[in-house]
Amino acid sequence: MPDSALTVSRLSEPELLARIFPRLELPGHHAEATLLGPGDDAAIIAAPDGRTVISIDTQVQDQDFRLEWPNGYRTTGFDVGWKAAAQNLSDINAMGAAATSLVVSLTLPPDTPVAWVEDLADGLVAAVRELGAERCSVAGGDLGRGREISVTAAVIGTLDGGRPVLRSGAQPGDTVALAGTAGHAAAGLALLESDIPASKLSPAQQVFPSRQSRPRPPLAAGPAARQAGATAMMDISDGLLREGLRLATAGGVVVDLEPGALDALAAVLAPAAEILGTDAREWVLGGGEDHGLLATFPAGVQLPEGFAAIGSIQAPGRTDGPGVTIAGRPAGTRGWDHFAH
Amino acid sequence: MPDSALTVSRLSEPELLARIFPRLELPGHHAEATLLGPGDDAAIIAAPDGRTVISIDTQVQDQDFRLEWPNGYRTTGFDVGWKAAAQNLSDINAMGAAATSLVVSLTLPPDTPVAWVEDLADGLVAAVRELGAERCSVAGGDLGRGREISVTAAVIGTLDGGRPVLRSGAQPGDTVALAGTAGHAAAGLALLESDIPASKLSPAQQVFPSRQSRPRPPLAAGPAARQAGATAMMDISDGLLREGLRLATAGGVVVDLEPGALDALAAVLAPAAEILGTDAREWVLGGGEDHGLLATFPAGVQLPEGFAAIGSIQAPGRTDGPGVTIAGRPAGTRGWDHFAH
Repeated sequence: MPDSALTVSRLSEPELLARIFPRLELPGHHAEATLLGPGDDAAIIAAPDGRTVISIDTQVQDQDFRLEWPNGYRTTGFDVGWKAAAQNLSDINAMGAAATSLVVSLTLPPDTPVAWVEDLADGLVAAVRELGAERCSVAGGDLGRGREISVTAAVIGTLDGGRPVLRSGAQPGDTVALAGTAGHAAAGLALLESDIPASKLSPAQQVFPSRQSRPRPPLAAGPAARQAGATAMMDISDGLLREGLRLATAGGVVVDLEPGALDALAAVLAPAAEILGTDAREWVLGGGEDHGLLATFPAGVQLPEGFAAIGSIQAPGRTDGPGVTIAGRPAGTRGWDHFAH
Repeated sequence: MPDSALTVSRLSEPELLARIFPRLELPGHHAEATLLGPGDDAAIIAAPDGRTVISIDTQVQDQDFRLEWPNGYRTTGFDVGWKAAAQNLSDINAMGAAATSLVVSLTLPPDTPVAWVEDLADGLVAAVRELGAERCSVAGGDLGRGREISVTAAVIGTLDGGRPVLRSGAQPGDTVALAGTAGHAAAGLALLESDIPASKLSPAQQVFPSRQSRPRPPLAAGPAARQAGATAMMDISDGLLREGLRLATAGGVVVDLEPGALDALAAVLAPAAEILGTDAREWVLGGGEDHGLLATFPAGVQLPEGFAAIGSIQAPGRTDGPGVTIAGRPAGTRGWDHFAH
């Protein structure tokens, strides 16, 4: 039987684990936080400042990724592993923390090729390394069977003695800043769902589907923002307007965005917008899954590397409550919701 | 529309979370470990001794539970929430640690009744409280959509400055002891998969299906075993023989079980074995999911409350390697494997 035809149903759980574990090691990586790795009932991770930051997130087949997209692209195990790691690492980043460990629970249909699962392990590890989570290792996991592929990761991290940056701390007068991109994953989703095959895309267009499959959260920016005195911060996983409204509501403030800054974010998306005949501002305002960071800083603070100013925090008016405005005018909330349509 | 007909597809994610979060609070519970609870990008949990013990586990519909069993029993949301908490709390217990926090990722088909999800939250919290995880709270979670119900929990815990009890530390001469039950969940599974309706079961028989749906890991026993000097310990989630073999292999020893002790464990299962015409020893040796603890203690140590001696550790013979024996004779390994059949 060729190796490509070997499915997980033909291996015992220990046999499958024996193929995955060696791939989860990160050679040359600083894994000193891992006091006990895979193989026992639980893992043990150092928490040097006496606190653990923890988040959990799931990727489900046909919801968070499609195995085959309308434009013909086939999602690889590498993509799914990458995205599972990136999305969870981003939540830790959004607190101003650095990830120290990741545990993964994989649910696999019996006909899943073993090679696909090995590829997933490779993608997970590649994301940890290439995104710069240099103190993070994969400390453990769980394998089970199901009708659809589902990957849940929990990531823990450390604030290194610092204070967490919450969503709720924005103050009137603060500068609103963005690290990372906005709308790239949404543009990529639109291209993947189009009938334009990847081979017809220019290199400038091809970058967008790759941001949908392998998002690149700016992992250095979270701790840098904390150290620079950020007053509030969050991951923009559900789109700039929707997440901006959450930050506004949590702080009881108005997030006012500058049209010029939004135009600059939209301009980068022109290669995708033109081929699809879309207004790129819709992607900037509504598109999620780039996993950029939205943060607020006291006026006058020099923004850390990677952040660009995109607006300011205002006190809410007497009649209007917290919300998001663009140059002072109310902005409609767009984004993505798991259940409602 | 009656409340029972309300499905998750009719609520937005914030609306559904607003129904779940209040149920996850544990009134009167010592939640001082939770420094930041649900509502931000990540939670923050105290790790007073500078270490975090972490484990992750998933329950999938039709794999780990059936929504409706052959005998007519319908699995409740409460059952699924309970089992998700119990199974994860057991992994922390098996290190000799106490759980401090639980985060949950729920994947739900759109037609899942909201009441079923609320019931799941209630079951999760009930297990935490009734099993005695008094320092544990639910610190956060994630909601998503899928074709089948899937519940992943990650639990973190503390060793309170103590050493972890690993699988690998058993020494020849040690006493092998069990806390909790063996085979009860397997007997329950056999009853659920039979054609005998619950109404035809005696109270003594009904306890077994309830152990399958709502396992009761002995959460006080893990830290007590650590304090008593246990040399090795693990959760028996895949059956006594299979887990015994893992402990034997990890320590390079032979786990020798006493037939009399096994008979005593089997005798308790008689009410289920008789009605089904099964040899109860099969359940004792092969049945998983009771989440009892298998531990080894130096000879002469007084076993902590809840543990009973079931055998001893022997050095491996010159020709035979590590393994499990019953009164010195090799025991066939039975248990349950996620992929192979």
